Amino acid sequence: MKKSIFYHAGCPVCISAEHDIVTLVGESNVEIVNLGEDRSKLDTAENAGVKSVPALVTPNGNVLHINFGASMADVRG
Amino acid sequence: MKKSIFYHAGCPVCISAEHDIVTLVGESNVEIVNLGEDRSKLDTAENAGVKSVPALVTPNGNVLHINFGASMADVRG
Repeated sequence: MKKSIFYHAGCPVCISAEHDIVTLVGESNVEIVNLGEDRSKLDTAENAGVKSVPALVTPNGNVLHINFGASMADVRG
Repeated sequence: MKKSIFYHAGCPVCISAEHDIVTLVGESNVEIVNLGEDRSKLDTAENAGVKSVPALVTPNGNVLHINFGASMADVRG
């Protein structure tokens, strides 16, 4: 199966959701991207449709926004 | 693994998220509850911490609110 990508920004809401998602989906099925640290991925995430973090982009390209940590504008600062 | 419970209310946002979650987590690992049809589960869902649907309650009791379909107040009507 193609991997999902979990985008977060290091906030507490994100970390909590990350643990849940990794447990549910399986560590080997998810790539984790911290947009707070890896800012070169911000454009990639927004182009994929990510409007807030944490968010999970599924293998078929759907975006699941999970809870609400921070808007992309906040992450860009 | 104890099952997760996916709560939704039949709205298009919910159905789309349901398909994604079932694909990612595996059909046998998720119980699906449609609060629009099974209104006796509304209290159970709210007591579990569900504030909007669609939402996934994980086996360890965390609530992941996914995208935003409708608030629980809207579902109660």
